Amino acid sequence: MDLLTPSAANSSPITPVRFLERAATVYGDYTSIIYNKTTYTWNQTNRRCLQLASALKSIIGIKRGDIISVLSPNIPAMYELHFAVPMSGAILNTINTRLDARTIFILLCHSEAKLIFVECHSHSVVLEAFSLLPPETHPPMLILINDNGDVIENSSFTVDSNLEFTYESLLTRGDPDFQWERPRSEWDPMVLNYTSGTTACPKGVVHSHRGLFIAAVDSLVDWSVPKQPIFLWTLPMFHANGWCFPWGMAAVGATNICLHKFDAASLYDLIRQHRVTHMCAAPVVLNMLANQPGIEPLTNRIHILTAGAPPPAPVLLRTESLGFVVSHGYGLTETAAIVVSCPWKHEWNKLPATERARLKARQGVKTLGMTEVDVLDPESGASVKRDGLSLGEIVLRGGSVFLGYFKDAIGTSKCLKDDGWFYTGDVGVLHPDGYLEIKDRSKDMIISGGENISSVEVESVLYSHPAIDEAAVVARPDEYWGETPCAFVSLKPEKSQPSQKDIIEFCRAKMPHYMVPKTVVFEESLPKTATGKIQKFVLREKAKAVGAARRI
Amino acid sequence: MDLLTPSAANSSPITPVRFLERAATVYGDYTSIIYNKTTYTWNQTNRRCLQLASALKSIIGIKRGDIISVLSPNIPAMYELHFAVPMSGAILNTINTRLDARTIFILLCHSEAKLIFVECHSHSVVLEAFSLLPPETHPPMLILINDNGDVIENSSFTVDSNLEFTYESLLTRGDPDFQWERPRSEWDPMVLNYTSGTTACPKGVVHSHRGLFIAAVDSLVDWSVPKQPIFLWTLPMFHANGWCFPWGMAAVGATNICLHKFDAASLYDLIRQHRVTHMCAAPVVLNMLANQPGIEPLTNRIHILTAGAPPPAPVLLRTESLGFVVSHGYGLTETAAIVVSCPWKHEWNKLPATERARLKARQGVKTLGMTEVDVLDPESGASVKRDGLSLGEIVLRGGSVFLGYFKDAIGTSKCLKDDGWFYTGDVGVLHPDGYLEIKDRSKDMIISGGENISSVEVESVLYSHPAIDEAAVVARPDEYWGETPCAFVSLKPEKSQPSQKDIIEFCRAKMPHYMVPKTVVFEESLPKTATGKIQKFVLREKAKAVGAARRI
Repeated sequence: MDLLTPSAANSSPITPVRFLERAATVYGDYTSIIYNKTTYTWNQTNRRCLQLASALKSIIGIKRGDIISVLSPNIPAMYELHFAVPMSGAILNTINTRLDARTIFILLCHSEAKLIFVECHSHSVVLEAFSLLPPETHPPMLILINDNGDVIENSSFTVDSNLEFTYESLLTRGDPDFQWERPRSEWDPMVLNYTSGTTACPKGVVHSHRGLFIAAVDSLVDWSVPKQPIFLWTLPMFHANGWCFPWGMAAVGATNICLHKFDAASLYDLIRQHRVTHMCAAPVVLNMLANQPGIEPLTNRIHILTAGAPPPAPVLLRTESLGFVVSHGYGLTETAAIVVSCPWKHEWNKLPATERARLKARQGVKTLGMTEVDVLDPESGASVKRDGLSLGEIVLRGGSVFLGYFKDAIGTSKCLKDDGWFYTGDVGVLHPDGYLEIKDRSKDMIISGGENISSVEVESVLYSHPAIDEAAVVARPDEYWGETPCAFVSLKPEKSQPSQKDIIEFCRAKMPHYMVPKTVVFEESLPKTATGKIQKFVLREKAKAVGAARRI
Repeated sequence: MDLLTPSAANSSPITPVRFLERAATVYGDYTSIIYNKTTYTWNQTNRRCLQLASALKSIIGIKRGDIISVLSPNIPAMYELHFAVPMSGAILNTINTRLDARTIFILLCHSEAKLIFVECHSHSVVLEAFSLLPPETHPPMLILINDNGDVIENSSFTVDSNLEFTYESLLTRGDPDFQWERPRSEWDPMVLNYTSGTTACPKGVVHSHRGLFIAAVDSLVDWSVPKQPIFLWTLPMFHANGWCFPWGMAAVGATNICLHKFDAASLYDLIRQHRVTHMCAAPVVLNMLANQPGIEPLTNRIHILTAGAPPPAPVLLRTESLGFVVSHGYGLTETAAIVVSCPWKHEWNKLPATERARLKARQGVKTLGMTEVDVLDPESGASVKRDGLSLGEIVLRGGSVFLGYFKDAIGTSKCLKDDGWFYTGDVGVLHPDGYLEIKDRSKDMIISGGENISSVEVESVLYSHPAIDEAAVVARPDEYWGETPCAFVSLKPEKSQPSQKDIIEFCRAKMPHYMVPKTVVFEESLPKTATGKIQKFVLREKAKAVGAARRI
């Protein structure tokens, strides 16, 4: 048996990029993408991706391993770039369109992107980011995506005549019969996703072709996605690559309904118009759907996958009564997709509605692509008791765990430890039936409107204010956003005393708006442990006591 | 990026064995197996497999990498062994229960199995195989499986009092909390499947944990298997591990309906009684279901997956009218599961029935787990034209291609070539739409009742007859079996002239009954090419001209 070792035929790299060529063969004449009045077939999508990949290589001169950044909402170009960029041999780096110029500047410096695709609504913020670069630095080449599906009224969106190419003009110069750049190893990096960036040390999560193949297929099986679903793109593709569904939807020959921005009314219009069958949504979108007044129940069932904060019982009950079948899971940018999910058991249907909601809100059980998930006691390092009470750190190992943080060997070794576990930093419990529940998603994380906010990063900005002595940021419950950042600060007595408004304005100048604390509480001093660590759990209780913020 | 290399957390071996522990958590109280009056839950199945694995290690002394053989129909023990054997660290070798003692003897010598599990109906043939071993050779330890679900009338099935254990008595001595033996590498061998064996050089196909994980998950996505299907075990698990569905069904928490042997009436009974949703079937079983007289259409739709010879149009139409949804694919023992499948396109529904059947009978398109499938011109080695006419050899590369043949480096290197392709030996064409169709499944292969018969092996027995000068065996169409072996022989003039019956009896003494030629045609001499090679394609036409054999 020892003589039987991997050979080229059986160890050929697994990659989700190949799902596209199969879709073009099997579903060639079927619709791949619908965006307003634009539609493509899988044949066209395949050829357009090959064209773009070819142009990136032969016209722009992109080389294997180069990083290409993208700032775009969920329009067709964004979907195509998920295939075209790796097909050119480059690494895809999608950037949150809500980031401010300074953060974008930091990310571009860190990634050393050779090229950046920018949808025109983000043009000015990217130019502002470029302006922060030192004079001797060459900014990445910028290619503008004209969002043709959208009426552009603002004249600043006019294409700069200095730009050599737009997305379309570059694409049309490529070869649709291009022999795309296959990965040399399945461990080759394919995407780079930043999870934070306002500090000097952004965390750039790198995933390999192998990891994304396993994550994409795993998610299809876990969610029982049938062939040719109608998928509504509410989840931003810049957010952890839309949980790998750009690739997964090619695997099953879906129709991808793209959109630029949306409100509840437009979502319901799209759902009815296209007979949508599947969609992913951050809890804030679930809230939006549940709270839209005057909505008649839908005529067909829509499978909706949500992750992050568990949906509250009233939201779950309301959406289910409208025709949505809600599945809930847990994943991190570092795991590429949902890796813990909550499969429903028939007998739970007999339980009272609130009990059903309680069970569904638990994060669940590891998916098939995961080797192991555990909750470790922080003191002993042993597994916690399966009692639903004992808190510990959630750890994972398995096929879709990331390769590491880009240019951050120390950060990587801190969470990908020698004991073979990925330490998530999230705190949870194990129930007697083996289901995992997150109790405190992370010591440092606030999830607001589906975006993760690192409290440490907000604190580092607060600490830069001349009058602030100590600062700690925790989540405050919010009926609309899920959570918002709430800052507790103590002031230096000798300085002039800033107001809550002063501090918020100070923050707005230095970080993306969604990260700015919505509440600032002044304290004489912050509660601390014997060893001097700030007791965040005390502050969390205080923030809760302030009450959930209500809107509209 | 070069610093980001695989680590223990992300490169932890992928294996389908883990699907069981997940099923026990998610589907613990649901039925895993039904066999006559015996039923198990997933919790029980998980604990029984752990018990057996523990007993194999601690009581029998099985070591990592040992080979454990099994001769059993599709009863619960056979299902359990697909998990328990790899959980003990051993390699699972299932053996076709229709083989004769001499072939089993050859396989046991080749595999050097340490242990053999034998369902009692196969006890005598295995003892006969043992008797062929040289006196100094220690036979493998034999553990009998009492098929409790079946009334045993023949007294020879009584358990031999010399046997230390039966399957159940061994299992009950194990520890259900056993820490099972994880694979050290995902390339560790997990199964050994013989595709032939009557010659001195059996072909033992070895698959790794990785290959079987990819194959099992790939098949679930390709067949769109939902959660908790009701799966009827018509396909023998000894046949290429039931196309990986023992593991796949654990992944989706199915109910496995086991059976010992069956006819059409009993299949329809089981289908109605358990509301079966999914089953796999060799074409002969499809025929059996189609030809059963007086059957009312089923009340629920049953997804049926078939492979091997494409189902003829009348069979396809008849089964579909009864409520079966037929999917058709192509795979080899060397690919673990179906790796080319024929996804249905909506627009084909508008075509006439015979045209639909023609399209459905094509083998199709590579599945997601495959990297590439091609048809190579035997002369030039280049891809054939996509014209549906140009014949070539089907070649594959991808995740579920086998590791190699056990103890056969030459055989391995002949088909896993340096150019990175697995050469299947099957002949096919590519259609303009990219769909693959097998034209001549293999120069050497006859598929009879779902079993592959190597004509070369039958010929080698014929050649051992003193009166036979030349022999060639080809497939003859058969309405029941699909195909049967048809022998063309020329006789030595000086010898006494045997009859057709003499030659068939000569074969019956030397090979499994299903391999014995059903037809023997005497020729003056066999047709040959200029270089002296027998022209099998001429003989195939002759065998066809004899006409399809009809039964009943």
